[in-house]
Amino acid sequence: MRLALLRSACGSLRGQAARPGSRLVGSSRRCLPVGATDRRLILRTVSGTSSSGSSQKLTVDLGKQPEEEDGSGCGSSVSEVVQSTKEALVTLQRRNPAVQPVLAILQAGEDDSVLEVSKKMAGKIGLDVTQICLAKECSEDEIVKELLKLNDDPRVHGVYLHLPPASLTSRVLNTLRPEKDVDGITDLNMGRLVRGDLSKGFVPPVASAVLDLLEKHDAPLEGKTVLLVGGEGPLCLTLQCLIERSGMVALKSRWNADNLQRQVMQADAVVLLDGANVEIPPTWIRPGAAIICCEPTLDTDTFGLSSKSGLGHLTAAYRTQNVVRSCSRWLQEQQYRAWCLHSLRLQPLTPVPSDIEISRAQTPKPVTQLAEEIGLLPEELEAYGRNKAKVRLSLLDRLHAQPDGKYVLVAGITPTPLGEGKSTVTIGLVQAMSAHLKRNSFACLRQPSQGPTFGVKGGAAGGGYAQVIPMEEFNLHLTGDIHAITAANNLVAAAVDARMLHEATQSDKGLFSRLVPAVNGVRRFSPIQISRLHRLGIFKTDPAALSPQETSAFVRLDLDPSKITWQRVVDTNDRFLRKITVGQASTEKGQIRETGFDIAVASEIMAILALADGLEDMKNRLARMVVGTSRSGQPVTAEDLGVSGALAVLMKDAIKPTLMQTLEGSPVFVHAGPFANIAHGNSSVLADKLALKLVGRDGFVVTEAGFGADIGMEKFFNIKCRASGLRPDAVVLVATVRALKMHGGGPNVSAGAPLPREYIDENLSLVAGGCRSNLRKQIQIAHLFGVPVVVAVNVFKTDTQAEVDLVCEIAKECGASDAVPCHHWAQGGRGSVELAKAVTEATSRPNNFQFLYSAEMPIVEKIRTIAQKVYGADDIELSPEARTKTDYYSQQGYGSLPICMAKTHLSLSHMPDRKGAPTGFVLPIRDVRASIGAGFIYPLVGTMSTMPGLPTRPCFYDIDLDPVTEEITGLF
Amino acid sequence: MRLALLRSACGSLRGQAARPGSRLVGSSRRCLPVGATDRRLILRTVSGTSSSGSSQKLTVDLGKQPEEEDGSGCGSSVSEVVQSTKEALVTLQRRNPAVQPVLAILQAGEDDSVLEVSKKMAGKIGLDVTQICLAKECSEDEIVKELLKLNDDPRVHGVYLHLPPASLTSRVLNTLRPEKDVDGITDLNMGRLVRGDLSKGFVPPVASAVLDLLEKHDAPLEGKTVLLVGGEGPLCLTLQCLIERSGMVALKSRWNADNLQRQVMQADAVVLLDGANVEIPPTWIRPGAAIICCEPTLDTDTFGLSSKSGLGHLTAAYRTQNVVRSCSRWLQEQQYRAWCLHSLRLQPLTPVPSDIEISRAQTPKPVTQLAEEIGLLPEELEAYGRNKAKVRLSLLDRLHAQPDGKYVLVAGITPTPLGEGKSTVTIGLVQAMSAHLKRNSFACLRQPSQGPTFGVKGGAAGGGYAQVIPMEEFNLHLTGDIHAITAANNLVAAAVDARMLHEATQSDKGLFSRLVPAVNGVRRFSPIQISRLHRLGIFKTDPAALSPQETSAFVRLDLDPSKITWQRVVDTNDRFLRKITVGQASTEKGQIRETGFDIAVASEIMAILALADGLEDMKNRLARMVVGTSRSGQPVTAEDLGVSGALAVLMKDAIKPTLMQTLEGSPVFVHAGPFANIAHGNSSVLADKLALKLVGRDGFVVTEAGFGADIGMEKFFNIKCRASGLRPDAVVLVATVRALKMHGGGPNVSAGAPLPREYIDENLSLVAGGCRSNLRKQIQIAHLFGVPVVVAVNVFKTDTQAEVDLVCEIAKECGASDAVPCHHWAQGGRGSVELAKAVTEATSRPNNFQFLYSAEMPIVEKIRTIAQKVYGADDIELSPEARTKTDYYSQQGYGSLPICMAKTHLSLSHMPDRKGAPTGFVLPIRDVRASIGAGFIYPLVGTMSTMPGLPTRPCFYDIDLDPVTEEITGLF
Repeated sequence: MRLALLRSACGSLRGQAARPGSRLVGSSRRCLPVGATDRRLILRTVSGTSSSGSSQKLTVDLGKQPEEEDGSGCGSSVSEVVQSTKEALVTLQRRNPAVQPVLAILQAGEDDSVLEVSKKMAGKIGLDVTQICLAKECSEDEIVKELLKLNDDPRVHGVYLHLPPASLTSRVLNTLRPEKDVDGITDLNMGRLVRGDLSKGFVPPVASAVLDLLEKHDAPLEGKTVLLVGGEGPLCLTLQCLIERSGMVALKSRWNADNLQRQVMQADAVVLLDGANVEIPPTWIRPGAAIICCEPTLDTDTFGLSSKSGLGHLTAAYRTQNVVRSCSRWLQEQQYRAWCLHSLRLQPLTPVPSDIEISRAQTPKPVTQLAEEIGLLPEELEAYGRNKAKVRLSLLDRLHAQPDGKYVLVAGITPTPLGEGKSTVTIGLVQAMSAHLKRNSFACLRQPSQGPTFGVKGGAAGGGYAQVIPMEEFNLHLTGDIHAITAANNLVAAAVDARMLHEATQSDKGLFSRLVPAVNGVRRFSPIQISRLHRLGIFKTDPAALSPQETSAFVRLDLDPSKITWQRVVDTNDRFLRKITVGQASTEKGQIRETGFDIAVASEIMAILALADGLEDMKNRLARMVVGTSRSGQPVTAEDLGVSGALAVLMKDAIKPTLMQTLEGSPVFVHAGPFANIAHGNSSVLADKLALKLVGRDGFVVTEAGFGADIGMEKFFNIKCRASGLRPDAVVLVATVRALKMHGGGPNVSAGAPLPREYIDENLSLVAGGCRSNLRKQIQIAHLFGVPVVVAVNVFKTDTQAEVDLVCEIAKECGASDAVPCHHWAQGGRGSVELAKAVTEATSRPNNFQFLYSAEMPIVEKIRTIAQKVYGADDIELSPEARTKTDYYSQQGYGSLPICMAKTHLSLSHMPDRKGAPTGFVLPIRDVRASIGAGFIYPLVGTMSTMPGLPTRPCFYDIDLDPVTEEITGLF
Repeated sequence: MRLALLRSACGSLRGQAARPGSRLVGSSRRCLPVGATDRRLILRTVSGTSSSGSSQKLTVDLGKQPEEEDGSGCGSSVSEVVQSTKEALVTLQRRNPAVQPVLAILQAGEDDSVLEVSKKMAGKIGLDVTQICLAKECSEDEIVKELLKLNDDPRVHGVYLHLPPASLTSRVLNTLRPEKDVDGITDLNMGRLVRGDLSKGFVPPVASAVLDLLEKHDAPLEGKTVLLVGGEGPLCLTLQCLIERSGMVALKSRWNADNLQRQVMQADAVVLLDGANVEIPPTWIRPGAAIICCEPTLDTDTFGLSSKSGLGHLTAAYRTQNVVRSCSRWLQEQQYRAWCLHSLRLQPLTPVPSDIEISRAQTPKPVTQLAEEIGLLPEELEAYGRNKAKVRLSLLDRLHAQPDGKYVLVAGITPTPLGEGKSTVTIGLVQAMSAHLKRNSFACLRQPSQGPTFGVKGGAAGGGYAQVIPMEEFNLHLTGDIHAITAANNLVAAAVDARMLHEATQSDKGLFSRLVPAVNGVRRFSPIQISRLHRLGIFKTDPAALSPQETSAFVRLDLDPSKITWQRVVDTNDRFLRKITVGQASTEKGQIRETGFDIAVASEIMAILALADGLEDMKNRLARMVVGTSRSGQPVTAEDLGVSGALAVLMKDAIKPTLMQTLEGSPVFVHAGPFANIAHGNSSVLADKLALKLVGRDGFVVTEAGFGADIGMEKFFNIKCRASGLRPDAVVLVATVRALKMHGGGPNVSAGAPLPREYIDENLSLVAGGCRSNLRKQIQIAHLFGVPVVVAVNVFKTDTQAEVDLVCEIAKECGASDAVPCHHWAQGGRGSVELAKAVTEATSRPNNFQFLYSAEMPIVEKIRTIAQKVYGADDIELSPEARTKTDYYSQQGYGSLPICMAKTHLSLSHMPDRKGAPTGFVLPIRDVRASIGAGFIYPLVGTMSTMPGLPTRPCFYDIDLDPVTEEITGLF
């Protein structure tokens, strides 16, 4: 036995060892509640051969060894319980070698002999014991405070409250977590026992001990009468329950009952509770009857313990049994747990109301409930209000041995500028899987930028009856991740400009004395400065030892103002910040330069959040981010600026995915939302990994890639899957009749303008044209990666049956595993059941996933591979600038990073108006840039706007808040 | 009785009325748990005069009226329970007229006669009844879902589960909130009853009915024996408990017990549970003994109810009694509750470790626990992780009748650039009050900007042993309020520039068609556009009816680019954004202009958040914000831009204060943090109001004002108290020996440079000089407002006893109520006990609070009053620009707003190097500006930086995160 974690509190006995033979504090024990077992069990048996019924008193107290063959079965009972508990523990530890059950004892005053027995018994079994020794006259508050700590301590599996009866108040008893209440004294455990549910609570060890003795009695007591004498408290009731459930008849009597003698004489066993000072005359006892006496006083001054053990030990043994049971339940809790997801009913209306109205009409389950339903532990959840919670990454450790579920990507054909509904398909599919097919499933979505919510596009929580709710919480602030990215991104920007100013206005010596200030006369490098010195090849640790050259190299990042690539960000559609001049105040001493703001989700930090697979990985990526180039051509990183630790601190909560739910109560992770042109446009690796563990082997994780399959899906495979190591099981390719008609030669579609007639009336030839060009090509792209494709036709009310049928028919001709119409927008999950079945079928087939290119190929070859195989280009053509940059990156050792093409999403080519599946073009590469922290090279094909603008009448005109009901209107 | 809220679920009986006389569904009732009381009570009494012991069977079933004088006491029992419950309800409703207790019945299938009795009884008492009728074969999930709704519905006070026994699973029973479990069937309530705690749970109505009959028996049963026959379930145990607690002796027997006859013959009362098919022969019954039979079948087809009522009615009556009791407890919950604050122990170390080390060494209470301790209801809390929670404003309604506590302001003397520790004094004072003097107290602090956390200043969570914990959560992100402000502020900015661009590039007609687009062919003004039309004096609602002039006035805000006052903000120290040029991208068509960024906390929206007294007030203030002036000289507001609804939506969560705690576990509100120069520098009105209600009449709310008393305190009184209507009870004026020496003529103190010797060695004459100048003047300023002053000397380790004594002595000479040294930094609350006592004393004195000026005075006079009376200036001198602006604001109707002086905090004058109490100067007013939404005019005295910079070595160099332990280092 290790006496672990011996804590001291409130002026108590810090580290004081147990004192054998110490006297018990002399307070009254009469009204001890069940479980506060500082009572001694005394067994008296009456010889079955004595006709006189005189009892042979056999007080086997703590100080003496019971005779093994005394007929009481007590010595052997202890051995049996010890043996079986030891075995249970061995089994448990064989499966979980790191686990060590701990019994915590919360005591007032010094050790007494009862405690000694408990501790020695724990040692015998192999439990650790933690003793919290409070002062004898400790207050209720002190006890509660310690109890709360024990409740929260995951190492403690059982708590034994060894306190004076007066301290065991209702508040104290019920502060103890029922899961750790190995003495079965909390109201909840008492109620469970009384109602007969033993699966969760604990039988009080005293009661177990008494039952054990009764059951081991020479003459079987089944159907016989057990008389309980003198008890009125909960212990008596508990015993009664258990005795009756064991098939005996329990009767009760009082010490002063007139008919006590008759009752005793008729009983087959007598249990004397409390008030043992009254003697039962031996003549009352029936021959062969058992008498068990729970004596409330203890006055032994000698103390010994043997393997045969005394009777009082039986209680202690049962307590250890409960601790091992508690530990085993705790381990069970830690295991993967089957879901018990409760779906929310949907009763779709016609016509379909506005998104915010639909969202508001549904009451989401409390996120704590959802979390419990999908097997998350309470300690893995950080609630943000009632409807959202961050999920801790420790889940990945807990479930590391759990097999992943099926991994499904939702991608789309080349869209119209109006979008074709990938998010609603994703959400509808998960609603169908969860609520209608009863398969575990999880949607992983990107967090939308707040900018477009107030601009043109509106929110991104899905739409109609396929939404994440509450949609306003999804669309606004969420749990602050984008705000954290903004703060981190702009701290880097401020550091860049401030550093350039300070370098421009100070000598090497001045810079050095400020960068490495004397604190109490001593200069020291901070760890982040040591890192920079190492990168410079300087391995000195004494600041005074640096040569002037080394000092200069160390203090001067020497950033070239014309080669700063780091932009500021803001989560607002603010087009006037696209190109700005900063530093115009006189305080900045003329250090003006041109730069710009991007929308926050275009920050490299967002891409890092999406690709990181843990806190350490994120921190390393943040440190590696290149902000610009020095005049001598060296990349300058966030770590060089000394800011990377602070960035990790700013991002420490953002790394945890946010749990929400769909309209039908299916779980959703919302996490990260990088741009799909200059970044890879996919939600986070971590959310997918957590979800794959949670759904379990037969479950589904549905994740979405931005833009069309030529962009979002290609990057999903080549960048995200490469980073995560995850392998997809199927692709759902979303198509709409509208977009197919456009690809088949239909007129232009643009936001804000009314749709041309071709898109409203049936036109099978346009549909067929679109299917045989763009749809076919996008299916082929997925097949390049060896993954089966299910085409989901997102049906609009203007689509005719013939059009939808035609799409499905041609899609299958083109090699899709299946093609099905979806009606999730109008019907919710019910409208996507066919899709869910098709996806289930597709994922059950073998699949031969492969990357399109090896990372080790030269940068230019990787770009060419994508252009030719994915886009259908004849070749690529690099501008001189692109060529130079490519060489530079290769030379800097970035050549083996994957490629993230920044291309228009409106065509497979670089020309937005070339619809269908264009051929015969050469893809021009205007420039090549790099996100070294995120880990990719991004060639620019055409100009990319990284800052949307506001139209004349932005969405915000209709957005309002009722200050009384707090209801929001106008969000969509 | 009103049949309220009749809901239907799962294809059940929508709105179907109860069917009197309908037969009970024929499932077995044998194993009904306690409380599922569709059983009939039958009383048989045995005539006391009959020597034969033959029983006179008196089956008073539901169909018949009991004879009032039948000796059973049953009819009279029902009347009594009905009468007393009615009276309880009347009393309750007299005190709470709006309250109507509701009994919810969750049933499977149609009404049966038992339900009819329950409903009619509820009607008789005056309860509302809600029936949830599920289908007969409903699933456990369906039941649980309905139960969860009932749990959450604050209108429902009791739930009666009228379900088949098989449906009453452990999960179902324990889903029900114990607070609404009026049948006492949850494990927790069962355990409470068994352990004897009746203050929280409910006695099952059947058990109450049986007890009632036993107690009313002709022959008193006190001390007599009650035999329970045939029951083994929880009902039997419950009854046993209650019978024994009533002073009777409970015995149990089984139907098949050999000695049943003898037991029955000896019993004074017999209760027959279950299995009533077995007859007890009349000869067994002792004369005068009572027999109560809980019969499990019910086969009456006739049904009637009278005021005398049958026996089955007694159970129903007790159920209504429990509903009224539940309602009464709920109301009690809603009342102000005395605190039961548990302090966290501090064991200060020497030397004092770093702030983050101290913070990390203390485990905060879970915020849910803190909330409960200070009397918040769970539904008033929105947790953000484990350590922070937003508190809903509904608290103000709930406690509107509760008297406010004492209101204490912490202000300071004119500080050195290093700061003199107002925050630590505030926190230390609250720690002393709460943890050491055991008085309710609350600290209200400003949320710090994240910028300085990474710049020079570090965090703002206090310091040493007087901190808010966890300090990193206080200093970073918190609950996202500043991020929300940033988003809202920058949305306005983007809207301003985008609107100017659109107006510059479109015709009136083009603008109109976009601003009022045709949706399905119809053009409509949005509500926010109607508001603008009204301000323009146009009262037309048909867009087609506007004249060309009206159209032009409506669509053109015609902002003068040189008169835009709205700046963008960022929560980063980014000096290069102080002055910038925006709009330089070609897409902005040459609409470039100069503007700048402020730090986020300088946004007018922050000032609004701090001054708003509710959601509606905030929304109105946001709408009133002036962003610039039109070319014709009209102010243009956020509402004119159409953005004010969206701003309210962005700010809807920010308006709720965030609850945290000090190192010693005292509650803290963190809310709002406006700049103290261009804004009023005080935390929020709402946080103060919530805290004043929570602490109760004898409690203390300690709030802090930025900068010295000449600025922060003056604005606290004249702006914040004017807006809130709150009146302060005392001012704590923080002084340090260091600052006093500076005012007494000591050399310059500046950040980063070592302190001159004068500040380290004892120098009484410098101290005296500072006291007799600056300290005296600041005390006098507080007295101008009629509020008593306690001087708190924030003791540094270099201060000598003589210096500290001298400060206290002179402070009292100068009129301070008291002056005491404080040692909170090194000792925590214990070091501020003397201050807490002095504050308690000061607040018990009468005080004559008054404003310094009337709001109706002309703007210039208000400025002059502050300059002369507070700063000690001879007069003021307005620049021509300031004069023009003053006239303009008066003319626009803003003349009666209070004044918010933007002045240096380093001197009472406008000259930072004039220390002490300067006189003989004229205060120059360079310019006058206005925050119309926040509601003040702010004259500029000198230049104010609203964007701090980063030094050469910002704090972030030392800030780091351990990716494994997630521990943060380097924050201070």
